[in-house]
Amino acid sequence: MAGNQGGVRESNAVVVVMAGGQGTRFWPVSRTACPKQFLVVSESGESLIQATVRRVEPLVGKERTWVLSNENLLPLLAKHVPGIHVVCEPMARNTAACIGLAAVHCLSRMKGEDPCLVVLPADHAIKDDSKLRDTLAQGIQIAKQKDVLVTVGVPPTHPHTGYGYIKRGTPIEGTVSKVERFYEKPSLERATKYLESGKYSWNSGMFVWRCTVILEAFQEFLPEMHAGLMAIKALLDAANGSGELSAESQKSIERIFSSFESVSIDFGVLEHARNCVVVEAEEFGWNDVGSWDQWAENFAHDSNGNLIKGDAVVIDSNRCVVQSDQRLVAVVGLQDVVIIDTGDALLVVGRESVQDVRKVVEELKRRGRTDVL
Amino acid sequence: MAGNQGGVRESNAVVVVMAGGQGTRFWPVSRTACPKQFLVVSESGESLIQATVRRVEPLVGKERTWVLSNENLLPLLAKHVPGIHVVCEPMARNTAACIGLAAVHCLSRMKGEDPCLVVLPADHAIKDDSKLRDTLAQGIQIAKQKDVLVTVGVPPTHPHTGYGYIKRGTPIEGTVSKVERFYEKPSLERATKYLESGKYSWNSGMFVWRCTVILEAFQEFLPEMHAGLMAIKALLDAANGSGELSAESQKSIERIFSSFESVSIDFGVLEHARNCVVVEAEEFGWNDVGSWDQWAENFAHDSNGNLIKGDAVVIDSNRCVVQSDQRLVAVVGLQDVVIIDTGDALLVVGRESVQDVRKVVEELKRRGRTDVL
Repeated sequence: MAGNQGGVRESNAVVVVMAGGQGTRFWPVSRTACPKQFLVVSESGESLIQATVRRVEPLVGKERTWVLSNENLLPLLAKHVPGIHVVCEPMARNTAACIGLAAVHCLSRMKGEDPCLVVLPADHAIKDDSKLRDTLAQGIQIAKQKDVLVTVGVPPTHPHTGYGYIKRGTPIEGTVSKVERFYEKPSLERATKYLESGKYSWNSGMFVWRCTVILEAFQEFLPEMHAGLMAIKALLDAANGSGELSAESQKSIERIFSSFESVSIDFGVLEHARNCVVVEAEEFGWNDVGSWDQWAENFAHDSNGNLIKGDAVVIDSNRCVVQSDQRLVAVVGLQDVVIIDTGDALLVVGRESVQDVRKVVEELKRRGRTDVL
Repeated sequence: MAGNQGGVRESNAVVVVMAGGQGTRFWPVSRTACPKQFLVVSESGESLIQATVRRVEPLVGKERTWVLSNENLLPLLAKHVPGIHVVCEPMARNTAACIGLAAVHCLSRMKGEDPCLVVLPADHAIKDDSKLRDTLAQGIQIAKQKDVLVTVGVPPTHPHTGYGYIKRGTPIEGTVSKVERFYEKPSLERATKYLESGKYSWNSGMFVWRCTVILEAFQEFLPEMHAGLMAIKALLDAANGSGELSAESQKSIERIFSSFESVSIDFGVLEHARNCVVVEAEEFGWNDVGSWDQWAENFAHDSNGNLIKGDAVVIDSNRCVVQSDQRLVAVVGLQDVVIIDTGDALLVVGRESVQDVRKVVEELKRRGRTDVL
């Protein structure tokens, strides 16, 4: 497979960046009003969504990079990725509905084409952009030629229990194999076995498929959602003819979308489909930035393993993370503690409990604390 | 010894509350501008200095309770202990100079008397006020009758390594003994031996002596300071005649005081004196509030051993202290961590490192961060 560094554009592909998520594990920085995809995760000050969009520009161009999000986030999107084409989901209905909506929008807008959709989460970190593009370009080639659902598998480097795994089956060509099975987040014991066997990849949540191929899969495994998507497509087709969606059509789309089952593309479609393939990526330094702990991995640490961002005095402490925008933070005699300070809220969490930050968000919801959510 | 609960006043005594300290271990709440003695340490909202003054009122009356402090703290003193008589030290010169200054002020103001000075730190917590007064009244009786330096010894309840110890010698009468020797803060091993032997008391830093007796001790062990104190007394005597201290006299006192050695009363006088006695107090629930850890002991904790003051969400955590005035603090998965949040600075410290909070203050001084000192 030839590299894609030269900027050869895959003109028949559209990148769909899924950017509607909430990211409760990044409270108190990530809020309803500013979810995880807008977090800064590099020394350069670039946010996750900015990096995601920048990375694929040499592949498809900015005009064929779409963001799937929601109305509330339009001002932030305008700031982070100005000029990008945004498709708004009327409400959150998980990834199946999101991807289905993207597919019918794409077919309606590009009449007569059957573009490849490159589906990317907006909130993952990737170190080697060029290797990512190579992998996606490979996925596009396969998806163009075959009626398959392409998943991007990442070679696991350690027995991570926070990721889904893909068991690779019969090889097809090069680094492409049939998917034997998808596995949900495993126990440490099971993850260790997966790693040792060499037959498993991390499920990166990045996918490539032609619009018609994914919609056929919806028809088979989520037939009600498929019917709704077809109804939405008809409304969009009519509007694309007249140039703008009427308020009535808009309302109809909302009503249809709101009836959709909230299910992930993995659980709703991929785990049942028989035409899934996996492109095993070259190691491109992927992580899903699932917690403050993983966020910190994107920055350089000091000799005591501390990551200190902002005004801080750190004494006799190791493997701590301190992020403070506005105030002095003093840390004394701590190990493995993450401290995230914002104007109106402070989080102090043990490194082993970073996944439980969502419990704070749940408790704040229970208390009706919309001021800090 | 009869109790003093009935309000029998020891009219020939003056209580001197030493309130010039800095309390670096209580950063970030305690600052240069608001030292430890102004910390609130009870559910009632009373500060340490308020409690100290209130406690001795039945013993000597408010008009014979003086505060030794400095000019910068006058506004805070006016707020916490309004109407109290304040003697200002021109600058910080440790406890020997402070007590010497109190003695000459006292002699000068109460011509013809030789009052007992009851010297109390402004920043200790005491649970049983009435037992404290009994002990002090006992000290006053002895100090009136004998030319002795009375120290208040507290029966140790555990092998504390942060306190000085007094070894009790020959018994004199009741709970009063000669002091055999003073010991600085011991190792845990040594503190355990002290505790087991039953011959040692904690040195509470509370003292009783007649003005002339302590000044004689100054003459013997700190002769230069004694000479300076006599010069100050002469200036005060002259002023007390005319009613007010002239600017020139004020300047002279400052100059003399600034020349004083900075030495503690223990190290400069008591450890050398042969006329020290110790009144072994009844257990009155004393602690010197030497750290955030000890501060927290004054409040009720929840069933997980956490002390939470202010707006907080605490999840899966034990034995933590959270104090926040202005912002929401969320704590997840932490054990034995103290979190003190103020408007412009935040401290997060392991319970075992609370003594090292002074290192933060040192580092901030080094960095010239007067904004948060």
